[in-house]
Amino acid sequence: MIKTPYLLFLGDAPDQLAAKVAQGIKDWRPDHAVGQFRLPGCGADLGLADLTLQQARTAGAQTLVIGVANRGGVISQAWKKVLVMALEEGFDLASGLHNLLRDELDLVAVAEACGRSLHDVRVPSVKYPIASGIKRTGKRCLAVGTDCSVGKMYTALAMDLEMKKRGTKSSFRATGQTGILVTGDGVPLDAVIADFMAGSVEWLTPDNDGDHWDHIEGQGSIFHVSYSGVSMALIHGGQPDAVILSHEPTRTHMRGLPGYGLQSLEALRDTVLPLARIANPACQVVGVSVNTQHLSETDALSYLADVELRMGLPAVDPFRQGAGRLVDALAAI
Amino acid sequence: MIKTPYLLFLGDAPDQLAAKVAQGIKDWRPDHAVGQFRLPGCGADLGLADLTLQQARTAGAQTLVIGVANRGGVISQAWKKVLVMALEEGFDLASGLHNLLRDELDLVAVAEACGRSLHDVRVPSVKYPIASGIKRTGKRCLAVGTDCSVGKMYTALAMDLEMKKRGTKSSFRATGQTGILVTGDGVPLDAVIADFMAGSVEWLTPDNDGDHWDHIEGQGSIFHVSYSGVSMALIHGGQPDAVILSHEPTRTHMRGLPGYGLQSLEALRDTVLPLARIANPACQVVGVSVNTQHLSETDALSYLADVELRMGLPAVDPFRQGAGRLVDALAAI
Repeated sequence: MIKTPYLLFLGDAPDQLAAKVAQGIKDWRPDHAVGQFRLPGCGADLGLADLTLQQARTAGAQTLVIGVANRGGVISQAWKKVLVMALEEGFDLASGLHNLLRDELDLVAVAEACGRSLHDVRVPSVKYPIASGIKRTGKRCLAVGTDCSVGKMYTALAMDLEMKKRGTKSSFRATGQTGILVTGDGVPLDAVIADFMAGSVEWLTPDNDGDHWDHIEGQGSIFHVSYSGVSMALIHGGQPDAVILSHEPTRTHMRGLPGYGLQSLEALRDTVLPLARIANPACQVVGVSVNTQHLSETDALSYLADVELRMGLPAVDPFRQGAGRLVDALAAI
Repeated sequence: MIKTPYLLFLGDAPDQLAAKVAQGIKDWRPDHAVGQFRLPGCGADLGLADLTLQQARTAGAQTLVIGVANRGGVISQAWKKVLVMALEEGFDLASGLHNLLRDELDLVAVAEACGRSLHDVRVPSVKYPIASGIKRTGKRCLAVGTDCSVGKMYTALAMDLEMKKRGTKSSFRATGQTGILVTGDGVPLDAVIADFMAGSVEWLTPDNDGDHWDHIEGQGSIFHVSYSGVSMALIHGGQPDAVILSHEPTRTHMRGLPGYGLQSLEALRDTVLPLARIANPACQVVGVSVNTQHLSETDALSYLADVELRMGLPAVDPFRQGAGRLVDALAAI
């Protein structure tokens, strides 16, 4: 568990896109974002106060989160200087970088000397169990996609936020690096050992109140040959009561797989539902979430109306329209 | 790659079952088994010559294979003494034990001093790629099961052996510890990091001659909630041209999952085939392999005849009847 709130380190991010992890934290957990820390030349701005390390500590910040991709996979000396000072000021560090904080011997030494923690969210810190398949109490919703990167995390976060606004018991359960940094907790599923994937999802979504919903962050796609095993483990480990189908309608092929065409939402429904019902016979497909960012408003609404008619399910773009109707669909089951 | 041939170390195995890895090597690769090495009190016997370390070296043995489960997960002092002597005599060591040779500091020190290798086949020694999904040359056959431990490895080994007898180009591709020790090579798939599972299967079954068959050892079951992600990665990473359905008809529930009933062979066919065709549109289900060890000969033959009629596919128990008809089915596609 990463201590909150955070000071968001943007470093020398060349542009806003490079700081998308920090942006995600600010968008979804504004209470966790005390301020931002930028180096000279930084091209990103979250619209948060620029704080010194000391100001951020005074404001209550517990962890400096590296919310930016580093260039060339190297933690530069300019970054290193700030990170060391942050440890000395009493911050823990958290990072989703490919190169790990724990592999930087100087950071490890300072962290030990200061009694601080280094969180590398790309690697699991827990010894997960083998999945037991035993039915858990509480409700679970899983977003599955026709492809990778079609908006599954966004959908789950938006549904969680909508439920919290309504006063419904709800948790977002992160399974990827950004999601873990957003919430401060989760399972870096793509880095888990094969035998323990489904078990790690069971661990992530334990017994809960009967009226509590876990919104499980999906990964990959059952149709994406590189990552389908991870998606499968989420379907069985997650024991979802409700599945949301996610889609990006303008893709011409599967992400990173030029030879592979997109599958339909109908195929996704017909593939996932029988598999999900092995772990949870009551599972239902309750709605469709479409990422319409590459469509005009008119085309988007027309596409959504068509999907809704074809599938007999509420179909929304939660970014354009909010997740209200998806949450309504959950409330109905 | 583990150097062959082997001296099979049976230690103080209490009975024949405890030495089943060694038995598998002797059954499937008799040419690799120069002899056996037993300690006082050993209750297992492979019917091989009992050789001293020196005799085995003289007979050409390159690797001492620990073909037996150890008691309580500890490498005893009695074993340790033999293992150290073997390293000094010029043997590499190979093991599928849960506790690793590489964690035994005295073995590591002796191996380094003698220039010998320690092979722990439960952990990957290769940095596998992310699966590319690119179509590979050569043919591949994958055994999939309605459950774990229904005879998938046996089926693949039997088909490989039958093809070799017929002079057909064929390889058994191991994905589990026993299979790796039998063949000296493979991928310990259940220990691979999630993101690289399908890529490791692609790596294991590379481009080959157009008339060469890989027989890929299956793992788990798409219906087994603990391990279905691993099975999924085999279906997509393996790009099988042919699938064999494997089944054990007397199970009352899924292995290790008392609340989960068995799925039918028809359900397995209907679930796996559409998923397999994403990676290989030409994939066909060509036969059924039934583990009838808990049925009488009459009941077994009657069961197989019924399956054959129902499914319209050759249905055999390769242990009772050989894998000839399954290989015939491959030849026909």
